[in-house]
Amino acid sequence: MAETGDDIQALIALLARLPGLGPRSARRIVLALIRRRGGQMAQLAGLLDRVAANSRECAVCGNITDRDICAICTDPARATGEICVVQDVADLWALERGQAFRGCYHVLGGTLSALDEIGPEDLGIPTLLNRIAAGGIHEVILALNATVDGQTTAHYIADALEGANVTVTGLAQGVPIGGELDYLDDGTISAALRARRRY
Amino acid sequence: MAETGDDIQALIALLARLPGLGPRSARRIVLALIRRRGGQMAQLAGLLDRVAANSRECAVCGNITDRDICAICTDPARATGEICVVQDVADLWALERGQAFRGCYHVLGGTLSALDEIGPEDLGIPTLLNRIAAGGIHEVILALNATVDGQTTAHYIADALEGANVTVTGLAQGVPIGGELDYLDDGTISAALRARRRY
Repeated sequence: MAETGDDIQALIALLARLPGLGPRSARRIVLALIRRRGGQMAQLAGLLDRVAANSRECAVCGNITDRDICAICTDPARATGEICVVQDVADLWALERGQAFRGCYHVLGGTLSALDEIGPEDLGIPTLLNRIAAGGIHEVILALNATVDGQTTAHYIADALEGANVTVTGLAQGVPIGGELDYLDDGTISAALRARRRY
Repeated sequence: MAETGDDIQALIALLARLPGLGPRSARRIVLALIRRRGGQMAQLAGLLDRVAANSRECAVCGNITDRDICAICTDPARATGEICVVQDVADLWALERGQAFRGCYHVLGGTLSALDEIGPEDLGIPTLLNRIAAGGIHEVILALNATVDGQTTAHYIADALEGANVTVTGLAQGVPIGGELDYLDDGTISAALRARRRY
């Protein structure tokens, strides 16, 4: 479309490559931004610039931060003896929204995958083992996805920590809050039944 | 979440207000952008800045452009005697993708709506009538949505042009290309049947 500015077309093409967006939704977003161009668009450009310039990975846990070490790792109120291992920063954010965990994190940056040739050294696993070898950690919670790759990675880490003086735990599996048995897969129901608890 | 930078949170909040996005998809987009921050993010910020600074409405047709008069209105290859009236720039873009129309456009910027108190003077209707009164136009194609508001607006414009020396036409209604009768609503099937044509 030579009819609209090349910048607008480039902006649409760039947005369309983002996760969850396509050409149609990118066009809608660009039109909405242009309609409110005075305020939102310049603000968005400024924020993107600042975030691009400032964000980096926490040197300790791999969380995204604008300092060398993230606000969680430097927070004196958080239990440094507990490390929650997550696949991704998105999972860390999800756990933080739950507000149930007050320890520290370790972001792997992915899962082991034979198919994609992702080994332990491609993830944050060596740095995790180093953190634990350095001492002071008593529990490692493997909060990985309940998928094949996630559980393979969890087993690998649990094996690697055998002999280290830490308790290794995993998230409970069972019926999600608000879940209706009728709509759950058989695997979840079996897991919830096996892990049943006394009232 | 004080744990992640305030800029990141502001960016997520801003993206979440865009059409078709919510907090979850905004978070995914921000994480994807941060992962590729060297390239895409700065590029996106630059494009947003440029588009915000340069885009404006074409003084003639209301299309979005980076000049005073858009590339369509200034294109000597386009028939200036035919004006295609559309509700929105998104519709103009859709027609341009179809490449079937080689005339000029007029963007209304909405539809008449008694409920939302949108009258003709809130839309590009007076400027459309002025363009036609200025002469040189022989056909006005009302390419408005086949919704109640769209058709109300089309009827209003057709009435206003009664007496003016122009042919007023509308898009054909019928079965969409690839459409299966079984999945079409009754209104579309009736309209297609009423407007049936000889082979």
